[in-house]
Amino acid sequence: MTLLVQKYGGTSLQTPERILNVAKRISNTVKQGYSLVVTVSAMGHTTDELIELARQVSSNPPQREMDMLLSTGEQVSAALLAMALSDFGHRSVSLTGAQAGIYTEQVFNKARIMDVKTDRLKKELNDGKIVIVTGFQGITQDDEITTLGRGGSDTTAVALAIALNAQQSEIYTDVDGVYTTDPRIVKEARKLHSITYDEMLEMASLGAQVLHPRSVELAKMYNMKLLVKSSMQEVDGTEVIGEVNMELAQPVSGVTLDTNQAKVAILRVADKPGVASKIFGTLARNNISVDMIIQSIHGDVTNDMAFTIARDDLEKCVEVLKSLNMGDIISDDNIAKVSIVGAGMIGRPGIAAKMFESLASAGINIQMIATSEIKVSCIISKEFGREAVKVIHQAFELEKV
Amino acid sequence: MTLLVQKYGGTSLQTPERILNVAKRISNTVKQGYSLVVTVSAMGHTTDELIELARQVSSNPPQREMDMLLSTGEQVSAALLAMALSDFGHRSVSLTGAQAGIYTEQVFNKARIMDVKTDRLKKELNDGKIVIVTGFQGITQDDEITTLGRGGSDTTAVALAIALNAQQSEIYTDVDGVYTTDPRIVKEARKLHSITYDEMLEMASLGAQVLHPRSVELAKMYNMKLLVKSSMQEVDGTEVIGEVNMELAQPVSGVTLDTNQAKVAILRVADKPGVASKIFGTLARNNISVDMIIQSIHGDVTNDMAFTIARDDLEKCVEVLKSLNMGDIISDDNIAKVSIVGAGMIGRPGIAAKMFESLASAGINIQMIATSEIKVSCIISKEFGREAVKVIHQAFELEKV
Repeated sequence: MTLLVQKYGGTSLQTPERILNVAKRISNTVKQGYSLVVTVSAMGHTTDELIELARQVSSNPPQREMDMLLSTGEQVSAALLAMALSDFGHRSVSLTGAQAGIYTEQVFNKARIMDVKTDRLKKELNDGKIVIVTGFQGITQDDEITTLGRGGSDTTAVALAIALNAQQSEIYTDVDGVYTTDPRIVKEARKLHSITYDEMLEMASLGAQVLHPRSVELAKMYNMKLLVKSSMQEVDGTEVIGEVNMELAQPVSGVTLDTNQAKVAILRVADKPGVASKIFGTLARNNISVDMIIQSIHGDVTNDMAFTIARDDLEKCVEVLKSLNMGDIISDDNIAKVSIVGAGMIGRPGIAAKMFESLASAGINIQMIATSEIKVSCIISKEFGREAVKVIHQAFELEKV
Repeated sequence: MTLLVQKYGGTSLQTPERILNVAKRISNTVKQGYSLVVTVSAMGHTTDELIELARQVSSNPPQREMDMLLSTGEQVSAALLAMALSDFGHRSVSLTGAQAGIYTEQVFNKARIMDVKTDRLKKELNDGKIVIVTGFQGITQDDEITTLGRGGSDTTAVALAIALNAQQSEIYTDVDGVYTTDPRIVKEARKLHSITYDEMLEMASLGAQVLHPRSVELAKMYNMKLLVKSSMQEVDGTEVIGEVNMELAQPVSGVTLDTNQAKVAILRVADKPGVASKIFGTLARNNISVDMIIQSIHGDVTNDMAFTIARDDLEKCVEVLKSLNMGDIISDDNIAKVSIVGAGMIGRPGIAAKMFESLASAGINIQMIATSEIKVSCIISKEFGREAVKVIHQAFELEKV
C-alpha cells in the first residue's frame, strides 16, 4: 500500500468539531487505499497557554522543563484524533515522539532530529493501523523529552515521510496553498500549482508562514515531495518539489511583504578592517539576527553601515550599538520589506530592474536593496507596503498562469 | 540524608499561585535537610476537562487513548512545579511515569504498579535534585502509557516511598487530616493524631475521601507510614500506621456518613441454592458493585434479598433485576449509611449496641445493619443522616482525646 504522511496544524485541530473533521478526511483517504501516518500540532492556542502558565510560576523557566510542559499539547491532540478515528470505525494508535522513535540531539526547545527508529511505526502500520504521531517533539538517547521549536510539527512530518519512505508529505493547514502573494492584499493573487524548495524557503522566511523553513530544507535534502493543502476545503493545494518545468515557469513566483522589520544605521564609522565584524559579532552575541546589510561609501575615510533586524529587537540593538560607541545611530521601524521570489529569475536579466521600475512608477522610494539568486528585496516606507505588492504583482502579471 | 516522598493533589496545584505555594513548602522542607521526591496530580479540574474533550470527539474512546490523553495532566503540573522550584533556587527535575521507571501491568485506565525501577530516580537524587514525578501513571514493558485510575497519585506516592525506602509518605491535600467525623456536620469533630491502616481503609471507602484506599492497602502491605497533611496550613496532620497504642485507643475512631447509596430489595425470592449467586453474579457482570447485603427469612419457602449500591447505578440495577424475573423489586434512594469505625472495638462488646441505642434515643429507625471486625454500619432514612452522625459522635465522646 502506498504510504502518505499527513500533518495537521493547530488551527485545524482547534476544537472537537475540527478534530472530527480531520478524522473524516483521514477516513476518506484511508478508504481510497492509502496507508497513513499522521502528525499533529497542539490544539489551537494550547502552546501559548502553556507558555503563559510557565511565565506565571517562573521568571526564567528551565528549558528542559519547558519541553516537558509543551510536549503535552501534541499528546492531547494525538490521543483525541485517535479516539475520533475509532468512532469512524478505524483502528489507530497515537504515539508520543518517544514511542514513535524520534530521536533528537539534547538541545531543549530547538532540538534537531538525529534519527527515526521506525520499528514501532512499522509494526503498527503492518498491523493495519493509522498511526498518529505527536509533532514537534522527540526523545534523546538519555530519555529526555525535547521539542523542535516553533513550527517543528512540519519537520516531524517530513522526517517521518523520509524515514518511512512515504510517497509524499502532506501539510494540511488553514490556507489552501501557496499564493503569488497575500490574497488579502491583491485579490487577483493566484494559487501556485508548484513551487521549488528554494522558492518556498525564500517565501517562508519572508513571511508567507505556510511551511516551516526547516521542514522545507529537510524535504529538499532528501527530495521528499511536500504538498500544502487546506484542512477545511476540498481543493488542490500547492506542491513543493525540486524543479518545476523551467520552460513554462514564470521568472517570478511570488511577491512577499514583511512589515515586522526595523532599519538601523551607524553613520560614518571608520573605513578599516574589523569594523563590520565588531558590529555584527556583537549583535550576534546578543542574539540579534540581522537580515539585509548595506555598506555605503562616503568617499572619505568613513562608511555608513545600515542593516535590518526584527522590529522586536530594535530597542536592544540600539542599546548594544551605543555601548560600542562607533558612530551616530539612527533607526526607523516605519519600514516594510517587499520581495520578489522566483527560481525562474536565474539567468534572466532585467527582473530586478522591472521591479524597481514598477515601484518608481507608483512613486515609491527604495531605501535599501538586497538580492540573492532567486530573490530581490527592497526596503520601502511602511505606508507603501501594500501598494508596492499590488504594483509588482501587476507588473509581473502574476495573476496569469 | 533522610528521604521523604510527598504527594500534592489537584486542589493544591489548581492555580499558578498555589503551585508557587507548594514550591515554597518544598523549599522549606529541603532547607531542613531532607531529600525529596514529590509526586503530583493534575492541576484542579484538568482531568475532568480532558475527559469532557474525549467525550466530544468519541462516543466510546479507546481506553489506551484515554490514558495517552489523561497522563498529560500530571506532566503539566510536574513541569510547572519544577519551574517554580528553580525560581526558589533549587535544582529539580520532573519525570514522567516512564522516566521515573514506574512499570505497570497493561490494563489501561486502572493499571496496577508491578515494579519501580529506581535507577533514574536514584541518579537524580544522588545528583542533589528534588525529583518531581507525575502521579497516577506508569509505563508497560511494551512502552505503553497507562494510568492507575482515580486517586492513583496517592498510590504512586506510596509505591515510590516503598521502592526508595523513604522514611514516610506525606499526602498533602485540601483538608488538614482525618477527623472523627465531618466537621461540617459536627463542629466538635476532632482531628485524629493517629489512625491504623485498617481504620483508614474503612474510613476511605465509607466516604471520607482523604486517601485513596489502594494507597492505604499498599502502605499497609509494606508498613510504610503515611502522613495526611494540609498543603495550605502549617498544622499537624494525621499519621496512618500499623498499630496505635491499644491501651490509649478509644474503641471508636470515627463516624462516617455516605448519602450516595440506594437500597434495592427483591421480595420473596425462592429459598434455594443458587439464588444469591444468580442475582449478584448478574450484577457483577453488569459492573454494579454491591455494598451491604441482607437476606431475611420469611419462615416459608421464600426470602427477601436486600442490598445497597451506588445511587448512580440504581436505574441500571433495577433494569437488570427485572430481566431476571425473580420477584417483586422495590428500591429506595432516600437513604443514608452511617458507620462507626475503630480498631479498638475488637474484643470490646457493646460498641454496636451503644450505637443502636444512641440512634433509638434520637428516634431514628434502623433499616439495615452490617458489621465487620472494625466497623458497624446502619442504613437509615436520608433525612436523619446528619442528626445520626451528631448523636453517635456525642455518645462515644469522640470530641475528647
